[in-house]
Amino acid sequence: MSALLSNVELPYYAVIFTSQRTIGDQGYGQMADQMESLGQDQAGFLGIESYRESSGAGVTISYWKTLEDIRQWKSNPVHQIAQDRGKAKWYQSYSVKVCKVERAYDFEHEDIE
Amino acid sequence: MSALLSNVELPYYAVIFTSQRTIGDQGYGQMADQMESLGQDQAGFLGIESYRESSGAGVTISYWKTLEDIRQWKSNPVHQIAQDRGKAKWYQSYSVKVCKVERAYDFEHEDIE
Repeated sequence: MSALLSNVELPYYAVIFTSQRTIGDQGYGQMADQMESLGQDQAGFLGIESYRESSGAGVTISYWKTLEDIRQWKSNPVHQIAQDRGKAKWYQSYSVKVCKVERAYDFEHEDIE
Repeated sequence: MSALLSNVELPYYAVIFTSQRTIGDQGYGQMADQMESLGQDQAGFLGIESYRESSGAGVTISYWKTLEDIRQWKSNPVHQIAQDRGKAKWYQSYSVKVCKVERAYDFEHEDIE
């Protein structure tokens, strides 16, 4: 169920972005879709997964080949506009963690649905 | 909004556990609460946060001081029972990523709610 590309070599990097949304959409949904689409075109992009609960609390985890790829994406001009709007109106709070993925394994159940 | 203890020194470690639940509770909720409570008593525990959508897709991220702390928790006998039941009936699939958190920063908006 992970939205990580398959056959990715370790180590790679993850950005854990946990956030609390403000109330109301205010253009957030459209920008989020746009950023997800733009992010996928960046060098070193390996995957992304997002979860948000009805309370507005959520997390987006994006995966990258190198720290330099993460820096490039953070400084992308269109992404910077999104980041500024995020601080101004879409997020009550957020936290960013840049991580090196050192070990990874998966489990898939064959018999139940 | 992150459930990480404050003033944690870098680097520390994160376990990203993404999963797709099977249908129905089957004792999952009670065990999940019990594991969250037991995990918090383990050596090196720094925090935990969970998000699950109505589709059954979700993620739990736990934070630890060292890789050894993660190994100890994984091999805890009560936790092992939970892991076995998870594979047998609670999870359609899951993926585990063990990560070293190298950089972390937070944002808190003062003016909007």
